[in-house]
Amino acid sequence: MNTDSVKVFAPATVSNVGPGFDIMGFALYEPGDEVILKKNNTGKLRIVDITGDNGKLSYSPAENTVTIAMKSLLNELELPDNFDVVLNKKMGIGSGLGSSAASAVAGVFALNKLLGLNLSNDMLLNHALIGEKFASGSIHADNVAPCLYGGFILIRGYEPIDIIPLNSPVELYCTAVYPDIEIKTSEARKILPQMYSINDTIKQAGNSAALVAGLLTSNFELISRSIVDVVAEPYRSKLIPFYNKLRDVVLTTGALNCNISGSGPTMFALSANPETAEKIAESMKTVLNEENVNHNIYISRVNKTGPEVRE
Amino acid sequence: MNTDSVKVFAPATVSNVGPGFDIMGFALYEPGDEVILKKNNTGKLRIVDITGDNGKLSYSPAENTVTIAMKSLLNELELPDNFDVVLNKKMGIGSGLGSSAASAVAGVFALNKLLGLNLSNDMLLNHALIGEKFASGSIHADNVAPCLYGGFILIRGYEPIDIIPLNSPVELYCTAVYPDIEIKTSEARKILPQMYSINDTIKQAGNSAALVAGLLTSNFELISRSIVDVVAEPYRSKLIPFYNKLRDVVLTTGALNCNISGSGPTMFALSANPETAEKIAESMKTVLNEENVNHNIYISRVNKTGPEVRE
Repeated sequence: MNTDSVKVFAPATVSNVGPGFDIMGFALYEPGDEVILKKNNTGKLRIVDITGDNGKLSYSPAENTVTIAMKSLLNELELPDNFDVVLNKKMGIGSGLGSSAASAVAGVFALNKLLGLNLSNDMLLNHALIGEKFASGSIHADNVAPCLYGGFILIRGYEPIDIIPLNSPVELYCTAVYPDIEIKTSEARKILPQMYSINDTIKQAGNSAALVAGLLTSNFELISRSIVDVVAEPYRSKLIPFYNKLRDVVLTTGALNCNISGSGPTMFALSANPETAEKIAESMKTVLNEENVNHNIYISRVNKTGPEVRE
Repeated sequence: MNTDSVKVFAPATVSNVGPGFDIMGFALYEPGDEVILKKNNTGKLRIVDITGDNGKLSYSPAENTVTIAMKSLLNELELPDNFDVVLNKKMGIGSGLGSSAASAVAGVFALNKLLGLNLSNDMLLNHALIGEKFASGSIHADNVAPCLYGGFILIRGYEPIDIIPLNSPVELYCTAVYPDIEIKTSEARKILPQMYSINDTIKQAGNSAALVAGLLTSNFELISRSIVDVVAEPYRSKLIPFYNKLRDVVLTTGALNCNISGSGPTMFALSANPETAEKIAESMKTVLNEENVNHNIYISRVNKTGPEVRE
């Protein structure tokens, strides 16, 4: 490995996972962003190339999540910021797959590796969150934390932030479909009620607690029936015109359940084996072709590793 | 064992357990109700004696949870109802310790044993819930289920009722104090808001999911910091005049946490060992003596067994 440069992959993530609005997420092996970091002699942090973003992202280090996260880390450690950054986006921006979180995590993870800092994930998390905050407007850890730690993550609370890696022993497969329709995160937030009934509050707590129990005891049936969201799905699903049709078809294939990834428009389905994950993908393709909606489908085991160095 | 009669103990239960409003509870070894069931020759279900209730409970089989639950079970099985019932109440009525649930469970559990029916807990549950409904006005399983199954119970949801015994490997000790002040369950319900902010909804889900994670992974620190309730405690604690004082003192003794049991006025504290449970009891006694409040204190390991036949 060249010690002047490093290439890092950071995974896409499915957040919310049904009842875990703002408090749960898990990582995938595919897709994911790639960041290549090289030391330079300019004494400046520069973005030298961005691919796969359709021209949507800024080359200004102060306006890109990857460099904002890196800069935050470098400032805290009082290190010089002489790095060139290449960012290869491998997923849609605003897809609901944690695109900005993946870039921010890739940046700080790459710095940690390139400089041999051996910083803990807890330390890296804070700086990745600062990068992600630029993109989403507020601190949300339900993409950043699973991207960085891998696996299923629970966020107990935000005051202070309390990340709980669930270390679930269960092997799960995810089929995620990113349909080519646009949902702005800010719009997806605005559509949500500000108040919920006591019954809905109880239902959300019951299902999120049950999902954690299912994950920790490898109880597939419990996982399946716990993926019920009363906070976001009833409202956000209306922003996805074919939501009910697609979900209904997916549920006939043996999927454990199907719901919205993050604020959408990506939808995800979980399954207990790769064959079912493939079948789900076929059914998604069929429906979206009928609806004339361009889309990308990703099949992946739940990623328990998090980011990694790539040669 | 005399096959014409049986004596059964059914445990008190702590429901809500902080963030698990309406969805969590656990059983104690002490206190608990006792039911003695004897076959009679009258062809009628009779309550022949009630002790420990201060004259509060009805001898009419149609107006007592224990016989309502039994009658429901006997009706379903089309069995004759020729039984004499003795009910020995060993805890306060309206104490927040699941008094009516314990009586209802004791009744159906005793019938199951006396008649050698070998019915499953799932079957007994439905009839115990019908008895409990008479006392509380609506179906709540967060006392009945832990009383019947033992241990920590999660109720995922009520449509249909979905009981999840957590089978937590952790050994926990509970110190419960029942102060001699009256809180009516109906009043404790009325004081709660009907709507909660999205932030409170997220907090409740995060803490209840984290408490389940703590219980399933024997993580005492996580259990400790997850016992936070934003749905009921902020409101119901106002009905207990010395609540903050007592809780603050208990938290200095090494308790994992302290909160309201059910709708109160009983308060409970969890701890990791019997010595701390004793220290907590001492501190409770000191505070309530200062406040001139009569009280009963119970120290018990979390009861993983549920009801049992006693000689």
